[in-house]
Amino acid sequence: MKISKHGGDIYTEGLLKERALIDYSSNINPFGIPESFKNNINDILNLTVRYPDYKYRKLKQSIIDYHFKYEKVTLEEDELLLGNGASEVLEIFIRSINKLLIVVPSFIEYEELGHKWCQSVEYSFLNDNFEYGYDDILEKFKNCNGMILGNPNNPVGNRIDIDRFKEILDYAEANNKSVIVDEAFVEFMGENKSLTKLIKTYKSLFIVRAITKFFGMPGVRFGYGISSNKNMIKLMCESQNPWNVNTFGEHAAICSFNDEKYIAKTKKWINEELIFFKDKLSTLSFVEEVYETNCNFILVKLKGVTGTDLYEECLKQGYVIRKASNFRGLDDTYVRFAIKDRRNNELFLKAINNIKL
Amino acid sequence: MKISKHGGDIYTEGLLKERALIDYSSNINPFGIPESFKNNINDILNLTVRYPDYKYRKLKQSIIDYHFKYEKVTLEEDELLLGNGASEVLEIFIRSINKLLIVVPSFIEYEELGHKWCQSVEYSFLNDNFEYGYDDILEKFKNCNGMILGNPNNPVGNRIDIDRFKEILDYAEANNKSVIVDEAFVEFMGENKSLTKLIKTYKSLFIVRAITKFFGMPGVRFGYGISSNKNMIKLMCESQNPWNVNTFGEHAAICSFNDEKYIAKTKKWINEELIFFKDKLSTLSFVEEVYETNCNFILVKLKGVTGTDLYEECLKQGYVIRKASNFRGLDDTYVRFAIKDRRNNELFLKAINNIKL
Repeated sequence: MKISKHGGDIYTEGLLKERALIDYSSNINPFGIPESFKNNINDILNLTVRYPDYKYRKLKQSIIDYHFKYEKVTLEEDELLLGNGASEVLEIFIRSINKLLIVVPSFIEYEELGHKWCQSVEYSFLNDNFEYGYDDILEKFKNCNGMILGNPNNPVGNRIDIDRFKEILDYAEANNKSVIVDEAFVEFMGENKSLTKLIKTYKSLFIVRAITKFFGMPGVRFGYGISSNKNMIKLMCESQNPWNVNTFGEHAAICSFNDEKYIAKTKKWINEELIFFKDKLSTLSFVEEVYETNCNFILVKLKGVTGTDLYEECLKQGYVIRKASNFRGLDDTYVRFAIKDRRNNELFLKAINNIKL
Repeated sequence: MKISKHGGDIYTEGLLKERALIDYSSNINPFGIPESFKNNINDILNLTVRYPDYKYRKLKQSIIDYHFKYEKVTLEEDELLLGNGASEVLEIFIRSINKLLIVVPSFIEYEELGHKWCQSVEYSFLNDNFEYGYDDILEKFKNCNGMILGNPNNPVGNRIDIDRFKEILDYAEANNKSVIVDEAFVEFMGENKSLTKLIKTYKSLFIVRAITKFFGMPGVRFGYGISSNKNMIKLMCESQNPWNVNTFGEHAAICSFNDEKYIAKTKKWINEELIFFKDKLSTLSFVEEVYETNCNFILVKLKGVTGTDLYEECLKQGYVIRKASNFRGLDDTYVRFAIKDRRNNELFLKAINNIKL
């Protein structure tokens, strides 16, 4: 089965053949679309007869309110870059860098964008425990003028230790270098772990956020960037096409950021389910190690079976999982699982436990 | 009132102050959102829990079917470039050109994209009757390696004479130059006036289409490009971010292309309304000339009043019109009107007729 570079392709073998596959490869909130968006869909639909506000004033205000409420930071409109998915924001941020350092294994798109836009791409590998190697990052950063890493990092789920990371930010600030932190999954980490609290201190810091994962709507495509380097943000905004976020993306975000119930429910779920799922996974016969994660996905090292074989076996059971061999630094002994709701997780664990390898 | 460079900004003075302005500045189908999209909105909403198909197979097939049905051409999947609005397609096409020729007055974005991406930008002006000056275009084209023009052209509404234009296409084909034809409004011109019929003959031809105008959904942001230069299309697709069209854009297009009733109704309306509206406009005391148009908008030369003054007077009556002074080659004696349904047009004509200048 040919898969997309981004993970399980549920279309080729699944949807387009009308076969219902359950997707354990994409790390999406299993609660699905927030009710606040669902309940307003007809009103939102009716707004499509007009162009969106080209300044996206209401959308920006809802982002500002959201960060003030949940992260105690006061952002300003001109510190925000809106994107048609986090992909667009990542591209614009990475395109501003000449010599890029990528901390790996991490999201494959960093590397693709690096090769597309930067003069050179270097790598700092996670340490043996799959945690950030701050000393190595700082050392490698000396030959680069920008870096990117995740908080938390995908596919591992490790997070940035802010105290240790400040040394890197201080260095970047003093040397006019950029640090891009991809926080697409940050809300899953529970109480405020975001680096937004540092945004006013470090003009060198560029944070990427999205509604894709936490608000369960990868089909909507909305992400945004944050930086207090207002000059840079202005130039970046000017480089964008007009109306790059459609009416649905605009209002999906506005509704989501205001949906207290959905946000609370999700944080409660991941808090409980992560422990349950991780514990169960570690008892499986073909699991050698379950890596520490702060997030809604789990990286696993296999024993006695390759990721490719496990993938095929799972497919037979109606599940798509994420082979991790195309992440730089990993190989076919690793796979990544998404975490879903308890019922699905139990069914999945039962199915995977019964696989004869 | 500060307006966006793209025309009347109905947000600043209108929506954000809860003042209902009627927008005669945007050339959008007044029938609004196709029923076929409306009726399926809840099913489409539910699809957003997944990423769109990264190959957009169903969407591409619906485009192919649409062009076969209405324009008798058989396009192939790898002749299509999908965009987050026609803006993205225009950008990618223009970015491939080094020395750009723009036929003006025309859509302001051509010029902005030209200055953003091309080494040089030259202009061929419409002739005195505001028709294409084919000889001048061909002459100027010799110093450029790509050109862009509209079919029909915005803001005038003039269209390409295919027989005369073939000379330019032959020249482009023989000299490895690109011709971009923006057909965002082409369906309003009635029976098939599209240049898609030439797409297989000329690898140099790049056509831009969109659902924005004809299907009445500027908020949705979906456009696409067509060329039989498959190598070029492949490179262009590879330069795009993944999932650049969101689930709503994808399915708005699929629904629209299949909505025979909406398409027929719109073609009938414009056929009748254009004549009515044009005739009435030409009787107004401050109208010096109404230009020949094939489309759902009309360019007018004023007498005894500037575009700016007329704009302000219309605003007082609750209407936004398009001042045309920022189109290259026009000045503040020109304005552009959209055409809406009969009832709105009658009210608008009555209001504008009563303005004391």
